[in-house]
This record gives sequence, C-alpha cells and structure tokens, in this order.
Amino acid sequence: MSAPAAVSSIERLQELLDGSPFIRFLGMRAIALDHGRQEVVVSMPLTPDHERHPATEQVHGGAIASLIDVAGDFALVILLGGAVPTINLRIDYLRPAIGDLTATATVRRAGRTIGVVDVDVTDRSGRLVAVGRGCYGMTVG
Amino acid sequence: MSAPAAVSSIERLQELLDGSPFIRFLGMRAIALDHGRQEVVVSMPLTPDHERHPATEQVHGGAIASLIDVAGDFALVILLGGAVPTINLRIDYLRPAIGDLTATATVRRAGRTIGVVDVDVTDRSGRLVAVGRGCYGMTVG
Amino acid sequence: MSAPAAVSSIERLQELLDGSPFIRFLGMRAIALDHGRQEVVVSMPLTPDHERHPATEQVHGGAIASLIDVAGDFALVILLGGAVPTINLRIDYLRPAIGDLTATATVRRAGRTIGVVDVDVTDRSGRLVAVGRGCYGMTVG
Amino acid sequence: MSAPAAVSSIERLQELLDGSPFIRFLGMRAIALDHGRQEVVVSMPLTPDHERHPATEQVHGGAIASLIDVAGDFALVILLGGAVPTINLRIDYLRPAIGDLTATATVRRAGRTIGVVDVDVTDRSGRLVAVGRGCYGMTVG
Repeated sequence: MSAPAAVSSIERLQELLDGSPFIRFLGMRAIALDHGRQEVVVSMPLTPDHERHPATEQVHGGAIASLIDVAGDFALVILLGGAVPTINLRIDYLRPAIGDLTATATVRRAGRTIGVVDVDVTDRSGRLVAVGRGCYGMTVG
Repeated sequence: MSAPAAVSSIERLQELLDGSPFIRFLGMRAIALDHGRQEVVVSMPLTPDHERHPATEQVHGGAIASLIDVAGDFALVILLGGAVPTINLRIDYLRPAIGDLTATATVRRAGRTIGVVDVDVTDRSGRLVAVGRGCYGMTVG
Repeated sequence: MSAPAAVSSIERLQELLDGSPFIRFLGMRAIALDHGRQEVVVSMPLTPDHERHPATEQVHGGAIASLIDVAGDFALVILLGGAVPTINLRIDYLRPAIGDLTATATVRRAGRTIGVVDVDVTDRSGRLVAVGRGCYGMTVG
Repeated sequence: MSAPAAVSSIERLQELLDGSPFIRFLGMRAIALDHGRQEVVVSMPLTPDHERHPATEQVHGGAIASLIDVAGDFALVILLGGAVPTINLRIDYLRPAIGDLTATATVRRAGRTIGVVDVDVTDRSGRLVAVGRGCYGMTVG
C-alpha cells in the first residue's frame, strides 16, 4: 500500500465508527491506530444488553463477532479511508469473555481486491478470549 | 440423538431466546422448529439501530453474525434443552441484507462432543444474503 | 449467470482435472455435473498413500481438504470454463472418512467477483464425513 | 499446559510425521520445535506432483491446506505426544505459492477439550503466501 494514510487520527476513526448506527449501538470506541503496523485497536464496553446470561458480565458471542468484524474492517479503513464490505469472517471463541473487551486488528494482506485481517480479543482481565479472521473487499462502500 | 426432544414448542423456544439479554436486545423471534429435520427458524426485525449506514435499511454484518450464531445454537437447543457454547463460527456475506432477516438453521452433525450447524439467511425480498456455519460444544451451560 | 455453460461434458471436466498435476496425483475423477443446479460431483479413490495411519483405510484430512477445494472450484469451472483461484476455504470434519470419497459441490453464490460453494463429502458407507465451504475469485487463471 | 513436553526432539517429530502415509507422501519435514512458544516449523518441498498447473512451480492449494493441517496438528503433538483429530480448518490464500514451503504453527489456546492453532506459510522467496487456523480435539488418536 503505497497510498498515503487515509485516516490518521483517533478522532477521525471514532467519527467513522459513529457514522454506523449498529457500531454506535454497541458503543465501540477507537483506542489506537498504527499505520506502520497496519493495526487498529477498538474497544467495546460491557453493558447489561451485551450479556449472554443476565447478570453474569459474560459478553454474548454475537457481540464479540460484531467487534471482530468492525475492528477488522477498520484496520483497512485506516488505509482506504472508508468502510469496506466483509466477504467472510471466522471467529474462534477461546474462553468466556468477561467485562469490557479490546480488539486488536492487524492486516495480514492488503491486496488489490482482497484484504485479510487478524483480530485478537482480550477481556478486562487481559486474557485472550477470542480470535477472528476476516476477508474484506478492497472497495470502499 | 435418541433422546426425546428437549424443546418442542415455539413458546418455549422464545422463552429461552428472551432469557439472553443480547438476543432480546436484537429482538430475535422464534418462528419455527422441526425436530425431524433438526431445524429452527429465527427472525430478526430491522430497527434503525441495526443499520450499517443510516437510513439504508441495510443490516450490519455484526447483527447478521449474531443472528447466525443464535440460530445455529438454537438448532441444538431443541435437541439438548439449553444453550451450548459456540466453539467457532464462519459467515459468508453474499449480498447486501435489506430489512427483516430470517435465518434457517439445520444441524449437519450432532455428535457426542461437537455439533455442526448450517445457517441460511434470507432478507425481506427472500434472497439468500448470507450463509453461516457454526461449531458448538454439546454441553449445555 | 446468463452465460452459456462453459463446460458441459464429464469428459471435458475430467480433462481439466487431469490438467492439474496435484489433482491427478490424488486420482480425482469427475462423476457428474448439473448446470441447472450448478453442481458437480468429484470422487477420490482411497490409496495407501492417502491414509492418515497405515492400513486403516482412513483418509487424511489434508486429502479431504484437497478434494473439497477441487470440487468447489470445479462447480465454478462448469460456469466459467477454467479453474479459478481459491480465496479461502473451510472444512469441518464430522466423522472418520473410510475408503473412497465422493464430494458434491453446489454453488451458493456466483457473483461478479466472488463465488461461494458448499461441498458435502460422503465416504464409501454413504455417511456424511466432512462439509466444506470455499470462496473463489471469479477470474479464470 | 503444565504437563512435561511430550515430544522434545526434531528426530522424534519427524518419526511421527513419517508414521502417517499421507504426510510422507507429500514429503513433509520437521524443521524446528519450541515448547516455550508452543510452536513447530514444518516444510514441504516442491515436487512436480504438487503443482497446480504443469511446470509453473506453483503449489496447489490442496497441498498447502494439507501442510497447514499437519503443522497445526503437530504444534499440539509436541504438547500431547501424538496426533489429534482436526475438528475444522480455515485457509486464506494470500499470494501464489512458489517452490518449497515453510509452515510455522503457533498454539493460540490449548484447552482441556479444544486446541486452536495459527499457521503462517511462506514460500521460497520468504513471502507470506497463506494463513491457516485449525481447531483440534485434545485427545490423541
């Protein structure tokens, strides 16, 4: 990717996140971005609505999948300037995810037509609770 | 699965869905279940909070992933009587998903320790918009 | 896909399979093709070289993955006239696979840039032993 | 994993690889193992039989999938002492893979019942050509 960085501030990344109703609905926050490493960090606070079972503080797998999809997408957004369509997505759930979650998304391949991104999710205790891998189209839209 | 059907009414299936805060948050509804075919149908109404971009009626991929995870899980719930942990999940997004969605989940393998379920998602126009495949542990909890 | 069928005989399908050294190495055979259903059937005979453990007649998972990749690809070959690149591939192993295997590959989506194909694999006893899903680019080469 | 390392030499790892007819058929070699990092390196030499198209030196995706499956499995073998069943597998193909391949497999989670392993594959030019992720049962057999 020889193009100049399309998104270079956390504030702009947060604006783009907030532009999507579903992402705002889940309360995701831009935490960090690193163009050199082609990496973004996105967090998702626990709310009672995200729980798998009431009053357990365990986040539902669907919310985790959503966080992974978004973080993976936004690792390409910082290169391309806007959200790209997800072609497919895999999530492996490694442990119960308790409390606020943090997703670190790292681009493995940014090709002309296809991007592949790895996403690691840790919970409030810092444990790795899920890993995801997304394949995205490289056309903003 | 020689065990008797653990869940046999739509009402009971809906109760179990409603018992999970995140599933209720997304408004999922039990539509049909068929023990012979080991199949359940779950729907998710479009709300403005589920949109990918504002006022497009296109559902965000994270909401679709959540619907697939839940429908796949509940295809095993009707056999086992309660929700089972997702081991991993894959989603292929085939077309933009517009409006209310319907997921049909069919068990491909209900083994002693692992269950594998296929999920097809159609949108309000009846088009196939996404396909998912989930791998679940066979222990309720 | 409004284009005329690009490959319409088993003999031509077998020629294309045999044109790939690795496919010939594993001995795969074209069994059936159906343009209306966008489906092909490919078989792979057991040889001692395909075994996971010696003298068990159980096929190694890598050979099964290869069969799934090829069958999925060739479900698009009958539409497009030549092999297409695999973008990604997923395989769920459901049971030990014993003896000759048969893969039935069905196109789920043949888009302009991306094709998605489901593949079911049965073994000599007719049991479903693995399911696969491949995502392919739609450019022959 | 508090258990002592079950396999601690390259020679023993190679013996276990050679014990599987299909792995021997593809000529895989044990290159390195690291218990601390829960990592193994396995290589696969190019032969004319592994080619996708004749005389291109491009390795077929099925051979790459096989290498990923085996390397992922053997990252758990060094912990458990013998091969474990693959539950499911995903491969993303990033670039054409030319010549001899090297797979580095790293355990992401070694649980009581499920292990998850990431595998990176580089070709003779050192480029990352494919990434895989496998989910394995934790019972040797």
